[in-house]
Formats: sequence, structure tokens, C-alpha cells
Amino acid sequence: MPSQGKLYVVGIGPGCEEMLTLRARKVLESSDYVIGHRTYLNFVRHLVRGSIVESGMGREVERVKMAVELASGGHVVSLVSGGDPSVYGLASLVAELVYRNGLELDYEIVPGISALNSASPLFGSAISGDHAVISLSDLLTPWQVIERRLRKALEGDFVIAIYNPSSRRRAGNLRRAMEIVIEYRGDCFVGVAKNVCREGEQVLVMRASEVAESGVVDMHTLLIIPSTESIVDGNWIITPRGYSRKYELEVE
Amino acid sequence: MPSQGKLYVVGIGPGCEEMLTLRARKVLESSDYVIGHRTYLNFVRHLVRGSIVESGMGREVERVKMAVELASGGHVVSLVSGGDPSVYGLASLVAELVYRNGLELDYEIVPGISALNSASPLFGSAISGDHAVISLSDLLTPWQVIERRLRKALEGDFVIAIYNPSSRRRAGNLRRAMEIVIEYRGDCFVGVAKNVCREGEQVLVMRASEVAESGVVDMHTLLIIPSTESIVDGNWIITPRGYSRKYELEVE
Repeated sequence: MPSQGKLYVVGIGPGCEEMLTLRARKVLESSDYVIGHRTYLNFVRHLVRGSIVESGMGREVERVKMAVELASGGHVVSLVSGGDPSVYGLASLVAELVYRNGLELDYEIVPGISALNSASPLFGSAISGDHAVISLSDLLTPWQVIERRLRKALEGDFVIAIYNPSSRRRAGNLRRAMEIVIEYRGDCFVGVAKNVCREGEQVLVMRASEVAESGVVDMHTLLIIPSTESIVDGNWIITPRGYSRKYELEVE
Repeated sequence: MPSQGKLYVVGIGPGCEEMLTLRARKVLESSDYVIGHRTYLNFVRHLVRGSIVESGMGREVERVKMAVELASGGHVVSLVSGGDPSVYGLASLVAELVYRNGLELDYEIVPGISALNSASPLFGSAISGDHAVISLSDLLTPWQVIERRLRKALEGDFVIAIYNPSSRRRAGNLRRAMEIVIEYRGDCFVGVAKNVCREGEQVLVMRASEVAESGVVDMHTLLIIPSTESIVDGNWIITPRGYSRKYELEVE
């Protein structure tokens, strides 16, 4: 009888250990191999009892194939994904590989806290209700699709969470995105959350026109574009859910 | 010196204990009072050492005011929110009360796993990338705003996660929403995830035209409208992130 391998794709949240789910911790502790990019491995390294395999940035396909091979060979493998594997994480790549190749692999996606869920409260309550989530990275998605989504989200007056807003190679995308925001909303305020729950955490509110030039924004930053209903005051961004239209919100 | 109270707004995820974060568990265990609706309290009751205060459905404002009062009086209080408090949860109401009343209250939002993060993997990888999140409940948001957002999300070809799709009093909203989906996408497939991670979990894929009449959809159901790029096959919904355009996804 062959040994039973299993592949876990483990969302580890924004970085601090307390944001791990109980399931994620358990799975990391009990895996034979834990595979991931160094940035994410560093957050969970102390929990791992098995072997650690570090893999470079941009090598997602290679990393996932290695994890699939090890699990198919009978090992229990955790593939580490920052935030939540379903939100710009490794869930889709694993599902795609398993589906396209008709693999009989036992795998499980372990959800994690995504950046918007940990960043929104730092402003008070920036998200609260309906929202759109858009990545500015055009490595895998054509820029015209990204731009069209941004426009539709602005037309729909969604709160917008922007992932992967900038990297050294494509700072132009951020500048272009902010121009589009200004086209619809004027030079509105934007929430900037960097390194949430990690060393160097910064939470700022600045004008859309200042975002690209600020030098703050990188791949570890989440931007939040408020809706026209959001209250912005200093570092507060609160998007009310409509309770104040129906109830007294005074406290004695 | 007055004693120091604190209010935690605790996201408990979809329901099963393993989806709690380490922080959520710690906070629930160490609170003097744990306040919430019975449905959510039942998932965490066994962890609570302090007093439990049950509060009825639809009494969010009353519940939040009580929590604020107890915390202001020097107690450590956990206010329980299903899923993530920032996504149709209690974060906004607490932030709004604190902000509007200028309270000097020490409070913290503890993020949780929201329904879309736990439901997406059950189809393979339904969400993966850019997505829009919309609630069909018109209790706090006018229906015309909801309908406009749904149309813009469809025009932007987002994957769409629909929260609060139906309740006994407003089944018409679901029927109307599916008509709008069909207007843009034809009678496409829709992911239906009910009671995720709880007793009675059901994961189905059905035609948009069947959703309202199926009798399956209630307030504990999340709907996922795939994008035009999503692969739908049986109970699989996979939204590729574009790797297949750039890499070989064959496994030996």
C-alpha cells in the first residue's frame, strides 16, 4: 500500500503569528515539508518541525510543481501563501494544475486573513460593506482589463481595495491608476496601509495625487479608495453601513 | 485609578473552531463578557470563561451599545461577529459609535475568515484574483445602489461574491439579481455554498435561472458568479490567474 501524501496550501495571513488560524498552525506543525518564499517562511519558521524548502520570488509555478510532486510521493506538504490563498495567492495555481492534469491528489486550501481584512480596521472601518478588490500587477492580467475594472468599480461607488499597487518595474501603473481615481472622484483621500502587522507598519491617509510620489507604496502596501459615502477625518476612514439612517447612534 | 476596560470586536470566521485565529481564541478566553447573537455564540461558547450575553437578530445597535457601555465601565468585552467584522460585520458600527460620540474607548477589531475566503476553495478556486463583493440585503442599502453595483461588477467582468442573498422577507431580490446576471452573461453557472464549515454544508453549481427556485439559498449561503474567464466543469469553478498564458502547467 502506498503511503498517503497530502498537500496543504496554507494562508498565513499578514504576517504576525496571532493572525494564523488554528488550522494553519496545526498543519504547518505537522507537515513533512514546508515550501514557500523566504518572506513568508520567516513568519512561520519557528513552528515548522519538518524540512523547509525556500523558493525564489516569481517562481510560483516551479514551487507549486515541487509541492505537488512531494505530496504525490507520499509526503505531507504545506505550501505557504501570504494572506489568503484565494486572494492573489496560490490556490488557483494548485487547483489549475490538479484539474488540468487530472491528478488524484489529496489537497486542501487552508484560508487565511487577507490584507484587506487586517488593514480595514486600522482606519476605523474603511471597508464595512460592498467592495471591489483589484490588483495593479499586469504580470498575469493585461493592463486594459485592470483599468476597465477600476473604472467600473469607481462607477459603482464601491470601496476599492488595491493589492500589489507598485513594484520597482511598474511604478507607472500606480500613477495611471491614481489619475483614473481622480477622474471620477476628484483628488480624494486614499488609505495607505503598509507592512500591516509586521515590522515597519505604517497607516496613512493621503490625497490620491500624492500617492505615487510619496515613495511609501510598494508590494507590501494595500491601498483603500473610499466610497463617496465614507467619512474621512484625519486617519479615520469609516464607511457607514446605513445604521445612522435608521437608528440613534448617540451613546449616553 | 479607574480600571481599564477594552472592547474587542471578534471575527469568528465561518463557524468551525479551526477557522478561528489564535488572536480570536485568546481574546474570547480572556474576556469578562462575550456578547453576540445566539447563532455565533454557539460556535465559541465552550471557549468562554466569562459571562455570556445573548442578543437577538436585528438588534445590532443595541448589542453594540451594551458592549461599549460594559467596556467603558472597565470590563474586558468581546463582541462576536460572524466571518470578518469588516465584511458586513460589526466593525463599522463600533467605529461609527466611537467616532460620532468622541469616545475614549480602547477597542480592537480582530479580523476573521470571511465567507468568500472559506467558500472559494470548495469549488477548486472560484475567486483567485480581482473580485467584487455585494450584499443583496436592502435593509441598510437602497436596492437601486445594490443593482447598480451588480451591473458595474458584471460589466467589469469581476468574479462576484454575493452575501446575504436571500431571506424569507425579500426573496424577490435574489430573483431580480439573477435576472440581471442573465442579462449580461446568459444563463451562466453560479456557485452556491451553504453552511460552509458547519452542519448541513452544501456546495453546488447550478444555472443562474435555477438559483432562486432551488429553495437552497438562505442567509447562510454565499453565491459566487464566475467571470467569463472562469473554468466551470461539474462542481469545479476555477478562475485562472493567467499563469497558463505564460507557463507550462503540465506535471510529469
